[in-house]
Amino acid sequence: MDTSRLTELFENTFPFWSMVSEDDRQTLINSSYEVSFDKGRNIHDGNECTGIILIRSGSLRVYMLSEDGKEITLYRLFPGDLCVLSASCVLSSITFDVFIDSEENSECVVVGGCAYEAIARKHPEVKIFTYETALSRFSDVMWVMQQILFMSMDKRLAIFLLDEISKTEDDTIRLTHEQIAKYMGSAREVVSRMMKYFISEGLITASRADGIKIIDKKRLRALTI
Amino acid sequence: MDTSRLTELFENTFPFWSMVSEDDRQTLINSSYEVSFDKGRNIHDGNECTGIILIRSGSLRVYMLSEDGKEITLYRLFPGDLCVLSASCVLSSITFDVFIDSEENSECVVVGGCAYEAIARKHPEVKIFTYETALSRFSDVMWVMQQILFMSMDKRLAIFLLDEISKTEDDTIRLTHEQIAKYMGSAREVVSRMMKYFISEGLITASRADGIKIIDKKRLRALTI
Repeated sequence: MDTSRLTELFENTFPFWSMVSEDDRQTLINSSYEVSFDKGRNIHDGNECTGIILIRSGSLRVYMLSEDGKEITLYRLFPGDLCVLSASCVLSSITFDVFIDSEENSECVVVGGCAYEAIARKHPEVKIFTYETALSRFSDVMWVMQQILFMSMDKRLAIFLLDEISKTEDDTIRLTHEQIAKYMGSAREVVSRMMKYFISEGLITASRADGIKIIDKKRLRALTI
Repeated sequence: MDTSRLTELFENTFPFWSMVSEDDRQTLINSSYEVSFDKGRNIHDGNECTGIILIRSGSLRVYMLSEDGKEITLYRLFPGDLCVLSASCVLSSITFDVFIDSEENSECVVVGGCAYEAIARKHPEVKIFTYETALSRFSDVMWVMQQILFMSMDKRLAIFLLDEISKTEDDTIRLTHEQIAKYMGSAREVVSRMMKYFISEGLITASRADGIKIIDKKRLRALTI
């Protein structure tokens, strides 16, 4: 990616772009690099300052990890999204660790945390933009928390399956129970039990060859209310 | 509280106080009022803009509430703390609802949300301070989430009991299992079962007359590691 395409990308991503000096823009561009992550690759691991990540293609999954390896997905990032929780040096009030994996083959641009932080220190607009981006993730996380703690599992699985088919525009889902459990922050056994119940209710069918197929969207949707 | 004491309080609370104009300071003071909340009283109920709350004495509990009435305590606020999540008009990127109760008889000062928002719109420092306060709560909430989702119940109860006695500087805790469960976002049955286990292990004693008494702090502390 040459400088002019990088400039265009930053112009479209950072609302403060026109408010900082030419020197500051150059600093941000010089500190940035393109990177491709293979599917499944871990990108950010706890509290180090990886930098600000711009997603150009693919998708990233942001999650929490317990000492014994249990994961809770907090949110996903798609093309055009910006990951700021990976820049701990910019967000000093964030004291928890998140992990980020590349969920598909993903193309990203990483802006160096130190360069970004130096600009943020000079320009309140940069700080405000970064905080606003982080705070909107706070809302996502609260949603996950509410879903996990308060919602019944049938409702959660129904929402997950419907979200999944609306994303892929295909009524068939090719994920294992293990993968679904991981995405939902649940256990495989719980997902399998609920799947069996959904099959017995005629909401879905499932086979090794064809994956999970939604056959009664209307009743599945009724579960989500 | 007269204007000069209010000014002193704001000077000590808001790091931006000296950076805004005399007019702005007067606007904040005029929009503020003192208020006493009785123990147990609900102060903020969802997403309306109650304003910025400064706690002068007592304590407030910030929690989430499910449709069926289940509560999860997110954090508590003590004298000197500032509650910004109650000012939804200032924090437009926060899209979830929190509830706030007065846990003891509490004296607070409430700064009107509209007046505060108008000043925040003019002064980036005000916005930055407010966002930083909200983001540090994000870290608290993530801690709760980690504790609830990942930690085993014995560890959680041990932490709760030790926190409680260090707060009151008394080895006796006068709370019912029901109250403890509520504070921990757990069920009374789970708390009662774990209490029984702690008693059988000789970590605590419990009686209706004398409440819960911690008798082996060392071993209780070992559980929290």
